[in-house]
Amino acid sequence: MSNEDDVWVEIALAQAHAAAARDEVPVGAVIIDAEGRELARAGNRTRELNDPTAHAEVLAIRAACSKLGAERLWDCDLYVTLEPCAMCATAISFARIRRLVYGAPDAKMGGVAHGARVYEQPTCHHRPSVDSGAGSEAAAQLLRSFFKAKRG
Amino acid sequence: MSNEDDVWVEIALAQAHAAAARDEVPVGAVIIDAEGRELARAGNRTRELNDPTAHAEVLAIRAACSKLGAERLWDCDLYVTLEPCAMCATAISFARIRRLVYGAPDAKMGGVAHGARVYEQPTCHHRPSVDSGAGSEAAAQLLRSFFKAKRG
Repeated sequence: MSNEDDVWVEIALAQAHAAAARDEVPVGAVIIDAEGRELARAGNRTRELNDPTAHAEVLAIRAACSKLGAERLWDCDLYVTLEPCAMCATAISFARIRRLVYGAPDAKMGGVAHGARVYEQPTCHHRPSVDSGAGSEAAAQLLRSFFKAKRG
Repeated sequence: MSNEDDVWVEIALAQAHAAAARDEVPVGAVIIDAEGRELARAGNRTRELNDPTAHAEVLAIRAACSKLGAERLWDCDLYVTLEPCAMCATAISFARIRRLVYGAPDAKMGGVAHGARVYEQPTCHHRPSVDSGAGSEAAAQLLRSFFKAKRG
């Protein structure tokens, strides 16, 4: 992890905070290209869009692909505040993301280090390099506060 | 499998044929509600939309959710010509689809009976009932022809 990583982790966290303010599960993501330029940032919008696939990662991938006019994000990196679920981990593989940096682990819903462990499957055609833990405590604290408030 | 299933399998196959005609990987899907009414049908559009998440199942789920104004498709069934990948299998779980009927098995990319086996994970919160094989030969033949033509 580098100082540059810290900038993107902070931007992903800001997207997570913005999602919480919209009453969405607070997860945020940002995608940067090989030159270190931002392509897209997004937070969860499943409630607003009535779309169970509108996770931060999927929205960021769709926006970045649209911007590039391409189905693949070769040499691009994705930062996200929470371990991606199996849907997002697979979408990240399809998009050919080079490097995945995620914050908090997700023992219940995660699909990278937990559950389906998408990148460990022999049938997985593209595996990003994976770093985790950056901004983990802030991301986890945000999620805890959100769900605690939900429970009243 | 019932006679009613056959109708939906045929509609999903027609969507797969339409996808092939658009030069998309020929997979088609249809979602019906508890009363047996069609909510949405879709074929792959990853190339057209520059969106690696635009698989038939994801597009059908997004369209059906949009139609209902809801994030969940309780008591709805999804028919698709090919075994869903891990991304789509997870999206189907998130959407709370009641029953999944798929045609051809997919040893390379499938995430239901192969690879990540999403519904067999202890962390999977909602598992649809799964039937497979309906229209399998027609779906597989369409895929074989498509990829054979691609290879020239």
